[in-house]
Amino acid sequence: MSTLCVPSQVPSVAEDCEQLRKAFAGWGTNEGLIISILGHRNAAQRKLIRQVYAETYGEDLLKVLDKELTSDFERVVKLWTLDPAERDAFLANEAIKKWTSSNKVLVEIACARSPKELLLAREAYHACFKRSLEEDVAYHTSGDFRKLLVPLVSSYRYGGDDVNLTLAKTEAKLLHQKISEKAYSCDDIIRILTTRSKAQINATLNQYKNEFGSDINKNLKADPKDEFLALLRATIKCLVCPEQYFAKVLRLSINKLGTEEGALTRVVATRAEVDMKVIKDAYQKRSSVPLEQAIAKDTSGDYEKMLLTLIGHGPE
Amino acid sequence: MSTLCVPSQVPSVAEDCEQLRKAFAGWGTNEGLIISILGHRNAAQRKLIRQVYAETYGEDLLKVLDKELTSDFERVVKLWTLDPAERDAFLANEAIKKWTSSNKVLVEIACARSPKELLLAREAYHACFKRSLEEDVAYHTSGDFRKLLVPLVSSYRYGGDDVNLTLAKTEAKLLHQKISEKAYSCDDIIRILTTRSKAQINATLNQYKNEFGSDINKNLKADPKDEFLALLRATIKCLVCPEQYFAKVLRLSINKLGTEEGALTRVVATRAEVDMKVIKDAYQKRSSVPLEQAIAKDTSGDYEKMLLTLIGHGPE
Repeated sequence: MSTLCVPSQVPSVAEDCEQLRKAFAGWGTNEGLIISILGHRNAAQRKLIRQVYAETYGEDLLKVLDKELTSDFERVVKLWTLDPAERDAFLANEAIKKWTSSNKVLVEIACARSPKELLLAREAYHACFKRSLEEDVAYHTSGDFRKLLVPLVSSYRYGGDDVNLTLAKTEAKLLHQKISEKAYSCDDIIRILTTRSKAQINATLNQYKNEFGSDINKNLKADPKDEFLALLRATIKCLVCPEQYFAKVLRLSINKLGTEEGALTRVVATRAEVDMKVIKDAYQKRSSVPLEQAIAKDTSGDYEKMLLTLIGHGPE
Repeated sequence: MSTLCVPSQVPSVAEDCEQLRKAFAGWGTNEGLIISILGHRNAAQRKLIRQVYAETYGEDLLKVLDKELTSDFERVVKLWTLDPAERDAFLANEAIKKWTSSNKVLVEIACARSPKELLLAREAYHACFKRSLEEDVAYHTSGDFRKLLVPLVSSYRYGGDDVNLTLAKTEAKLLHQKISEKAYSCDDIIRILTTRSKAQINATLNQYKNEFGSDINKNLKADPKDEFLALLRATIKCLVCPEQYFAKVLRLSINKLGTEEGALTRVVATRAEVDMKVIKDAYQKRSSVPLEQAIAKDTSGDYEKMLLTLIGHGPE
């Protein structure tokens, strides 16, 4: 479900590094060459390129990109080049440092990754920041937000498909009861959403729909301006239908007066290699415009080229 | 700091398996032979023995031990034979199923292991029980106990030695303030104890002592019968001085009218390969009797032999 196009004949890592070195050399930077290389390599290949580049030229490729590129193009290339776990650690740290109650990045990292991927992000966080992810989240948040976010980022959910249907029924009722009481941040709702496996939560929410006739997220919209409710809805969507969640983030970021590059860049860089094909389908279905067309209309230059490359509609 | 004695010339795994098979054969079981093998092999060697035993005889060694051995001797041999991560998963599950507020096993597993070891225990828990550790803890506990235990078992603390002294001073003050207010289960106390690295917590507690002239655990003894306070004290001891914590558990379990085998067995099986030498020193210093002497006085038979073997005073 990745939209990344890796050529059938990939040049050697040494060649890739040499070409990148050329792209940075002299006056001006050859952005097209950078896109044609990094935009067509998978995570393992990019990791190797970074490693060999550092060994060959004694410089961290990330730092060189930092120096040579600017603005939105710089951000998408850098995010993309990072190893997925390191990228999550970086995005999480950024989100924590400038945390606002409307920020959904921590929820994405905690819920739209596999349990193992979240663990790798936490490991990368240790290595990059000499602290733990949950430590920083707990320190910089408070109240209901802390109550939800700390267990979310600390979770190591069971990853199997086993489902306990009796439990699903009981917990669907419990969720419904607590939501009816508007006890949105009660221990039970938090416990279920932060500890149960994705398969189990999916079963519970199906039971919820069967028994009470509506989607749980509809019932979590009592006050559309309530940021905590918005975070709960994002948690649920990232756990059970991440593609739809990300399609919506794209829709909102592109439809804004002036595209919101932050979200657009983040979603493309984090999902291209995961489920971007499905996200594109979901986007087109809901917006009646193909994603590549929407992006081409709202962005320009090398930034546009890199985004289109990553979603599978690059110049080559 | 391990008390395990592995002979300089270890027989091949196949030989060990053959000898074990012999020990189980016919009428009666040769307990001495079992002790002489399993009691003198490290975790990696025992793992290999289990693997080769299953391949050779088509039976899980653990199940055979279950069938052939009885009571306290059975339990210590089985706990010891388990891989450390699996053993922790097993002990944690047992503690959750028969959870009482005085049970400290979850705290031991969450705090007296390295961050990586706790992670491996959580992985083993997935594999053994098809659920996550934090999921079961959250489901089976409540109130203040849940508030402390869930983040404790979910933590993946930073494992480095880096310490922020300014933060240590601030958080020492914060802890003191909250303890003075008797707000023992407040968000701040829980956050600091469940997310900070062991090195950072150690620095904070040193600041606490310097600034306020007493050990934090002294101040957490307002009501000696309060089980939550006891759990907080155990948390702190397991984080900063696990050897003293375990020496005390041994002291209490041996001094009871009738030794409390549960705790004695658990401590010996989980610490023999870790820090039993230091625990023995701490025990002797405080009890004026060597641990081996206390164990020999209070236990008997094969159980006694196995315990003494694991703490380095076996028959051979």
